Amino acid sequence: MTDIRITGVTITPVAFRDPALLNAVGVHEPFALRAIVEVATDQGVTGLGETYADDGHLRRLRAAADALTGMDVYALGAMHRALAGVLAGDSGTDGSGLTGMITTSSAVDRVFSPFEVACLDIQGKAAGRPVSDLLGGAVRDRVPFSAYLFYKWAGHPGEAPDDWGAALDPEALVAQARRMITEYGFTAIKLKGGVRPPEEEIQAILALREAFPGVPLRLDPNAAWTVPTSIEVARRLEGVLEYLEDPTPGLDGMAGVARETPVPLATNMCVVAFGHLAPAVARGAVRVVLSDHHYWGGLHRSRLLSGICDTFGMGLSMHSNSHLGISLAAMTHLAAATPNLTYACDTHWPWKSEDVVVPGVLGFTDGAVRVPTGPGLGVELDRDALARLHEQYLTCGLRSRDDTGYMRRIDPDYEKKSPRW
Amino acid sequence: MTDIRITGVTITPVAFRDPALLNAVGVHEPFALRAIVEVATDQGVTGLGETYADDGHLRRLRAAADALTGMDVYALGAMHRALAGVLAGDSGTDGSGLTGMITTSSAVDRVFSPFEVACLDIQGKAAGRPVSDLLGGAVRDRVPFSAYLFYKWAGHPGEAPDDWGAALDPEALVAQARRMITEYGFTAIKLKGGVRPPEEEIQAILALREAFPGVPLRLDPNAAWTVPTSIEVARRLEGVLEYLEDPTPGLDGMAGVARETPVPLATNMCVVAFGHLAPAVARGAVRVVLSDHHYWGGLHRSRLLSGICDTFGMGLSMHSNSHLGISLAAMTHLAAATPNLTYACDTHWPWKSEDVVVPGVLGFTDGAVRVPTGPGLGVELDRDALARLHEQYLTCGLRSRDDTGYMRRIDPDYEKKSPRW
Ligand SMILES: [Mg+2]
Ligand SMILES: [Mg+2]
Repeated sequence: MTDIRITGVTITPVAFRDPALLNAVGVHEPFALRAIVEVATDQGVTGLGETYADDGHLRRLRAAADALTGMDVYALGAMHRALAGVLAGDSGTDGSGLTGMITTSSAVDRVFSPFEVACLDIQGKAAGRPVSDLLGGAVRDRVPFSAYLFYKWAGHPGEAPDDWGAALDPEALVAQARRMITEYGFTAIKLKGGVRPPEEEIQAILALREAFPGVPLRLDPNAAWTVPTSIEVARRLEGVLEYLEDPTPGLDGMAGVARETPVPLATNMCVVAFGHLAPAVARGAVRVVLSDHHYWGGLHRSRLLSGICDTFGMGLSMHSNSHLGISLAAMTHLAAATPNLTYACDTHWPWKSEDVVVPGVLGFTDGAVRVPTGPGLGVELDRDALARLHEQYLTCGLRSRDDTGYMRRIDPDYEKKSPRW
Repeated sequence: MTDIRITGVTITPVAFRDPALLNAVGVHEPFALRAIVEVATDQGVTGLGETYADDGHLRRLRAAADALTGMDVYALGAMHRALAGVLAGDSGTDGSGLTGMITTSSAVDRVFSPFEVACLDIQGKAAGRPVSDLLGGAVRDRVPFSAYLFYKWAGHPGEAPDDWGAALDPEALVAQARRMITEYGFTAIKLKGGVRPPEEEIQAILALREAFPGVPLRLDPNAAWTVPTSIEVARRLEGVLEYLEDPTPGLDGMAGVARETPVPLATNMCVVAFGHLAPAVARGAVRVVLSDHHYWGGLHRSRLLSGICDTFGMGLSMHSNSHLGISLAAMTHLAAATPNLTYACDTHWPWKSEDVVVPGVLGFTDGAVRVPTGPGLGVELDRDALARLHEQYLTCGLRSRDDTGYMRRIDPDYEKKSPRW
């Protein structure tokens, strides 16, 4: 038996163009940041991971890389333990890359994730099998994703409009959905809400319902509403939404809403770490959890989350932040190997125009991504693209995600507020 | 990428000598039955599994083998789904091999388990890695087991006494423990109770405490007691037992006991399938779950159980039935890769004198088994031993486990009763 030992880790922060997408805490900056993690081994096989690239997170990633160097790529449990030691005393809340909406996820799980994915990439390559096979095997060969609609400005202030144009009312959102469905074939639609007053967002959902009969619809205001507002929106959209995501902050608030509506409540805000599951189950407030391997500690631990949802009668969907192809590959392998994935996954994919992976493997047909069948993640780094996006990181000046700060530079009166309505 | 497809499955029932060990439902028969599952593949690699061999279970195993032939050894999720189809409508309660004490485990998980273990054995051999590496990697290189004490007769009626002799009082149990610790080095002790009146079993535990100060002690009467009796025993043994296992039947009963004692309650009777976890967690009655990959659906699903215990604040130990070396290897890999294994595992190992695996890999030092480091499970079939134990199966006449029936042939007045005291 030959160990496959980590000889070094390269962490490359990159920046890619991101449209002016609006959300409950502000607006996306002109660039989204990601870190590309390359793990090298003494057997010559290398693996890829992708994660956030805020300064605080980069600092933790570098400390983790030092701790993991010399370890065997199969020693995932030991790696997780080692990182718990490295990060002991680090609250992990500064520069997490999660824009203030997911503040209580586990720093250890967040830092561990890209290394675990890279090690699984290596394990898969060494065994000549796709990563999905290391997770119990794919139970589907195509993974469905949802059309992720955003209220947005035509372009970033001072720049030319992007080719999606502005979307600030129901008609524009319907047009956005129509284009996205035409280009990608999505069979479910999610609207990022919490941007316009609730009445407008209700009208947007009703317009989408009329334009796309039968297509599952979701609304995610990221805790922008009070409990009474949430109950009123749920009442208006009963029978229209497949689920309502994080209408209001906190588990108590969610429980207050859940008591008054049959609309299933979903979350990627109040259940974002294993420590949140017991209280959520006890309260019965959450009926759908959005998993995300980037903060749930990688693919194996996301499978654990899936199993917990299955065991405790909760549905399972998948959360997305702005991401590149390494993440999409990992999300697709995970979703493929998750029997109880009960909803189409989220992805910001259509909003980006650049990537670090060699094109061709990942593509959308009928709203789904075919599960890569090559060894490991099945994707390859495009070194020129990586260099270009790293250069873009160096020159763009952004070092952490700050949707609120950016919004306040444009609108000094803007206040971050949850709930807002 | 080359698939590794199952070309055939050989299921060999075997019987091995078993002493007259007493428990709450009767006495072990002269032979214990197991089925050895050999999975062959088109790549020439083969894998091993071990499970129960009662007639009903054998019938289900054969149906499963047919359904799985042709499948890829990595397609574990798809296999589980396929078996759910094959076993639909089969309550799985007849001839489960679990002697009437674990009646509500999942038939699908029980039948799937030996195939999953065999497929992991194959995956490990194909990748040149031990099975523990496929489960996240060993976090310990030695797995601690407990000395499993039994009240017992000197021998089976009509036969010469075995070399352990009779154990029907505290002194004999202390002697049994002393021998077992001398030979194996165990650092924890479990007494199978529910055999003698509770006062005698209390005295036995107190005698063990005096003889082995500082050694963790457990008592498992297999639901032989009423709630008041359980509370009284717990009161008498507070501070003496590390946990009390299944004192009384059912989750309600366990909750009734738990309310009245600080002694942690453990179970492998009222939480034996994923469907039992939500009610157990809601009730808060169970503080330690004994896992057992033979009925929890294999090693991956046992890891899920571990993760659930960790997430919901329950301790984790490991259950044992009479077993051979393939099972011990699987249990050891699983335990090695389980970070939150909070107690030494159970094993019937010292009670058997025959096996189907080539000796040498599995051995006890200081009460622990060194995790095999060879590819797969790391154990090999001894074909001569397999043939001999299969011949023994054919001639012994036993076709299902029936501790109560055997006891009643010896003592016609014996009644199965839970609770008894
Ligand atoms: Mg969300
Ligand atoms: Mg027990």
